[in-house]
Amino acid sequence: MSASSINLAVIPGDGIGPEVIAEAVKVLEKAVAAEGVDLKQTHYKLGAQHWLETGETLPDEVLADLRTRDAILFGAVGAAPGDTRIPSGIIEREMLLKLRFSLDHFVNLRPSRLYGTVGSPLANPGAIDFIVVREGTEGPYVGNGGTLRGGTPHEVATEVSLNTAHGVERVVRDAFRRASDRPRKHVTLVHKHNVLVYAGHLWKRTVEAVAREFPEVTHDYLHIDAATIFMVTDPSRFDVIVTDNLFGDILTDLAAAITGGIGLAASGNINMDRTAPSMFEPVHGSAPDIAGQQKADPTAAILSAVLLLDHLGYTTAARKIEAAVVADVESRTGEPRSTAAIGDAIAAAL
Amino acid sequence: MSASSINLAVIPGDGIGPEVIAEAVKVLEKAVAAEGVDLKQTHYKLGAQHWLETGETLPDEVLADLRTRDAILFGAVGAAPGDTRIPSGIIEREMLLKLRFSLDHFVNLRPSRLYGTVGSPLANPGAIDFIVVREGTEGPYVGNGGTLRGGTPHEVATEVSLNTAHGVERVVRDAFRRASDRPRKHVTLVHKHNVLVYAGHLWKRTVEAVAREFPEVTHDYLHIDAATIFMVTDPSRFDVIVTDNLFGDILTDLAAAITGGIGLAASGNINMDRTAPSMFEPVHGSAPDIAGQQKADPTAAILSAVLLLDHLGYTTAARKIEAAVVADVESRTGEPRSTAAIGDAIAAAL
Ligand SMILES: CC(C)[C@H](C(=O)O)[C@@H](O)C(=O)O
Ligand SMILES: CC(C)[C@H](C(=O)O)[C@@H](O)C(=O)O
Repeated sequence: MSASSINLAVIPGDGIGPEVIAEAVKVLEKAVAAEGVDLKQTHYKLGAQHWLETGETLPDEVLADLRTRDAILFGAVGAAPGDTRIPSGIIEREMLLKLRFSLDHFVNLRPSRLYGTVGSPLANPGAIDFIVVREGTEGPYVGNGGTLRGGTPHEVATEVSLNTAHGVERVVRDAFRRASDRPRKHVTLVHKHNVLVYAGHLWKRTVEAVAREFPEVTHDYLHIDAATIFMVTDPSRFDVIVTDNLFGDILTDLAAAITGGIGLAASGNINMDRTAPSMFEPVHGSAPDIAGQQKADPTAAILSAVLLLDHLGYTTAARKIEAAVVADVESRTGEPRSTAAIGDAIAAAL
Repeated sequence: MSASSINLAVIPGDGIGPEVIAEAVKVLEKAVAAEGVDLKQTHYKLGAQHWLETGETLPDEVLADLRTRDAILFGAVGAAPGDTRIPSGIIEREMLLKLRFSLDHFVNLRPSRLYGTVGSPLANPGAIDFIVVREGTEGPYVGNGGTLRGGTPHEVATEVSLNTAHGVERVVRDAFRRASDRPRKHVTLVHKHNVLVYAGHLWKRTVEAVAREFPEVTHDYLHIDAATIFMVTDPSRFDVIVTDNLFGDILTDLAAAITGGIGLAASGNINMDRTAPSMFEPVHGSAPDIAGQQKADPTAAILSAVLLLDHLGYTTAARKIEAAVVADVESRTGEPRSTAAIGDAIAAAL
């Protein structure tokens, strides 16, 4: 990474991925050009469609090549729900999760904010502005499990959640660091330690220990079930949530829903040690039902580009895009616009 | 169990448990008396307070005694959040979960219904009327995990989710049976099979197989993250949800929240094979902050008694209580009433 150029990997993916990524790149290019920064792009063909054509998920050479980039902008992957040609979950696991795990994206950062006029399904949402710091490299997502006597009446299937002091501590410290930079300076640990004792206690003890390094940050704890209740009854109570890979997956979709939908929800899969490029992607999926129709909202992809710029230190460009997005979102009337029209409007407002 | 008497175990528990259970028993007694049924009660002192006094969670003799009853009415257990005298989660695991597992409560039944005027936090909730059939005896709740090098920087903590063909099939079949008795006849499996492959595929395959026994019932599938989105954007789409122990825990708290809160959410821990008594309890906890103040809403406990009567076959009494509850709930104005006043009103309306 140099101050005057960004070496960007672009993975548009499947479904609406290419459409929303085109708008994110359009906005990104314009914003960094204004700062005298050159955006060098390398596009990678990966995803369900690519698998159908080649049988490849994420070849080693492609992974090695991706490692040479400064950051990755990712659209969405996944086949149409009914498509039986693709073994279920193979693209998610052997490509998306493989990227997160291989590139050590231990901070899965998902901000949630309710913009002025955007429709929340909640009657009284209040002022919603929190971030979820979801662990991204361990927990129930490690793929560690098995099947005994599969397909028989005596089948046993297991899933093992692996949690390490190393993995928990680094993400908890990241959450406290982010909280300490925010006005409310509050961290909420979400887990289920009354049932998941071993993992739960590691998380609880780690939060207690790391909290001592951040005397200015307050913290509390919620079980995952209680957290979903507060998400719909009092979401403004949250500032920074830190949680494991699976609980974070669940909470961030719910958080996206209450802040106007996954058309707006951005995320970063961040390697805070910078030993490999981080990856930025909308929370939404490939939505094959509306693909190619210019119906998808590119805002989540554009906000993911904002997180990318922040991570690379281009904060001026990041704030400019963010301001343009907020202005656009707050002026929405419900009148449908094409994917490109939204991207054009945001780019024009830069 | 005889047609003319019910041999009931009552576990009031901690916090608001005794208050809400008193009202449930009041209503239950009156409803069955009208049918000429005698309610024989045996009260058991168990819970956090009992543990503080005796160090006992659930002694073997008590468990054996409970097995001789027709059904168990359970209030709530749990210490005040700040109470450090009680090892975290010990009452939940060694008493509540021990009851569910020992008595083979494989169907954790949690109905969700939005009553006319009851305040949902959703702006447009629509007509909500679904049941969640949560697996109650396996999954991530089995307590199978461990800690290696605890308290060191090299700690590894695991949690193992155990899923068996036996366990999954019986609860899936129960869900289809219940769906086939409902007008919409639809089952939604909720899991995360794209990531939790082994357990997820067992659940998926089992649903496909059992569905063939119920040609009149339709079914679909949602990932847990997507299910939480629909829970707040389109909850009326659900009819019968079947899911594992942990996803069911999360979804049912969220379901309670969108239907007016856990003051109304009832549940049954049901052994459908009737090899041991089933247990009925409000979804809410012991709420120590409002305990002893007659502030708790006994409706969830009373609706749990309705599920108890249905399970034992006293459907006339069950429907009468249910009608009285619905009338009471739909006439609520927001004016606060004491726990006993609500119980009295419902009993009087029988
Ligand atoms: C596609 C899937 C593997 C992924 C996840 O579960 O992490 C998605 O739901 C997300 O939240 O990014
Ligand atoms: C208290 C706890 C163990 C319990 C659970 O997780 O099942 C509760 O949350 C519930 O839903 O009944």
